[in-house]
Amino acid sequence: MLQYNMYTNRKPGDEMQLKDVGEFNFIRHIQDNTIHDPSTVITGIGDDCAVYSAKEETDQLISTDTMVEGVHFSFHYMKPYDVGYRLMTANLSDIAAMGGTPRQIVLSVAAPEYVDTAILDEVYRGIKDQCAKYHLNILGGDTVCTEGPMVWTVTIIGDVPKGTAIMRSGAQVGDIVGITNYVGYAATGLGALSYNLDGYHMTKVGHQRPDPQIELGQQLRQLGIHSMNDISDGLGSELNEIASASNVSIVIEEKAIPLHEETYELAKYLQTNPVDYALYGGEDFQLVFTAPKSLLSKLENLAGITIIGEVVSGPAQVQMVTPDKTIKTIEAKGYNHFHES
Amino acid sequence: MLQYNMYTNRKPGDEMQLKDVGEFNFIRHIQDNTIHDPSTVITGIGDDCAVYSAKEETDQLISTDTMVEGVHFSFHYMKPYDVGYRLMTANLSDIAAMGGTPRQIVLSVAAPEYVDTAILDEVYRGIKDQCAKYHLNILGGDTVCTEGPMVWTVTIIGDVPKGTAIMRSGAQVGDIVGITNYVGYAATGLGALSYNLDGYHMTKVGHQRPDPQIELGQQLRQLGIHSMNDISDGLGSELNEIASASNVSIVIEEKAIPLHEETYELAKYLQTNPVDYALYGGEDFQLVFTAPKSLLSKLENLAGITIIGEVVSGPAQVQMVTPDKTIKTIEAKGYNHFHES
Repeated sequence: MLQYNMYTNRKPGDEMQLKDVGEFNFIRHIQDNTIHDPSTVITGIGDDCAVYSAKEETDQLISTDTMVEGVHFSFHYMKPYDVGYRLMTANLSDIAAMGGTPRQIVLSVAAPEYVDTAILDEVYRGIKDQCAKYHLNILGGDTVCTEGPMVWTVTIIGDVPKGTAIMRSGAQVGDIVGITNYVGYAATGLGALSYNLDGYHMTKVGHQRPDPQIELGQQLRQLGIHSMNDISDGLGSELNEIASASNVSIVIEEKAIPLHEETYELAKYLQTNPVDYALYGGEDFQLVFTAPKSLLSKLENLAGITIIGEVVSGPAQVQMVTPDKTIKTIEAKGYNHFHES
Repeated sequence: MLQYNMYTNRKPGDEMQLKDVGEFNFIRHIQDNTIHDPSTVITGIGDDCAVYSAKEETDQLISTDTMVEGVHFSFHYMKPYDVGYRLMTANLSDIAAMGGTPRQIVLSVAAPEYVDTAILDEVYRGIKDQCAKYHLNILGGDTVCTEGPMVWTVTIIGDVPKGTAIMRSGAQVGDIVGITNYVGYAATGLGALSYNLDGYHMTKVGHQRPDPQIELGQQLRQLGIHSMNDISDGLGSELNEIASASNVSIVIEEKAIPLHEETYELAKYLQTNPVDYALYGGEDFQLVFTAPKSLLSKLENLAGITIIGEVVSGPAQVQMVTPDKTIKTIEAKGYNHFHES
């Protein structure tokens, strides 16, 4: 049994467990502070369905994401608040990757009946703070008991102006390839935490409390980029998804990939290759995209954009030119591989 | 460990487990046969989000439902196909209860890595058959591993013509109270299965493979009823929800409640009160509603509608007149109570 109460202020013996409160009462208890954009809500939580209105002249976006305790997160490395925060970021990032605006979520948790409800409250607080920041409404929730580890599922609804969603299949030969901010950032923080290293303040926060790139995603869509993915599973994997969906070759320049100084520092300490954190480390929640060359100057005017390569004709694959001009094929292995190797 | 392979045609040792296939490949494997109304789908499974269009002049309905192995279903009583079928019915029933039309779902499963993928395939087959029957699209899925029991979550999206969703809060003094088909039906089947009784063919199927009342829900909305709930948690609980949300008193007539002959048979055998199956037995997925008296003749023309009471002024409560004219207050205890008592 996990030491849940290390994250709460309750004295031992003071915990209130899910079985004491009951699922039904707990749902009532968390219904406050769920509506952050009332303009689209007709009926929130409390009926058989919630009722909302879709904005006119938009297409609807939908995605769902499940996180399992012990598999996708651990209370050993993450505070409950951060688990909720990052679960929301993973979902918001899927909306960002289409250039969209997030609007509504529903969420469900299966939790052991002995769990201290203060832990659930903390996860919800992380979820609700992200919902408040991005003006999302929580329109439904299900809290149920399980004999196993916690399972959290969020379904997110967003929208884009009709016909403008950015797919991963839109890359064209001649496009330039860009990414937002740093990659390998979260993996660096996770590595530093795993090895119990002091320092690495920026990337530890990057792992524990990553943010989605909603605004940059919208700006990129408005500029007229051709394709986009969020980097949830390592740059190597995401680039391969674009190459494969668009049936194009992508060539990137190793030295162009923007790495944070803490990534270089950790790679040096562990005698690993720093670029591997970017290619195979997961959960950066940055965006990778391809755009027509004509957008180059406009892209350079956006803060946090780096051009790392181009789209060429050839088989659906990703190649990287190393500093010594060797060409390496980057395989579609992501986060999982990184942790197994 | 459960005897999963009793429901598959594989010989012992022939099982293919989730860990052998890998989550990612398994998702690909189940992507076939997911689009049953292409007119609303812009991009299905395979990008960061699916993209769909909301019908014009509609309000959107959303609901989510989670079922945990060992809590909400058991492979001892239910075949994997039926688990999927019933999970969909629970979600569809929430749309029916608003008078809506179901449109899209996303689903996620957390399953043990040792699970035979044939079990997952069977659950998906139950889900997909229900989606095909009601012309729903599966727009997203997440398959992840857990060390605990299976957790299935479905989020459903539907719609109603703008401004016409039927809430549970709309009951008015003077309304008549009606229900669809039989209640206590699924609880009878579950009881017969629990006691390992022969016979009870109709209600066993009613428990294992219940159907939602989508069409009746839409017809009731079109007639202009005032309030509605689906009966997922016992008639007593659902009537109390309407009374409480609408702040009215509801009085029902015990002898008017439509019970199936198998319910009378089981109650006689177990020496229990047959009406308790209706009031406190769950998962009938029928509809209970209130409507203005002026609709009485139109309601009587619909197949499967029974009028069981009326809405009166007074405190938010539910009372039942017994055959000997005693008045009993029906408490808001549902399914859980029924199984504990």
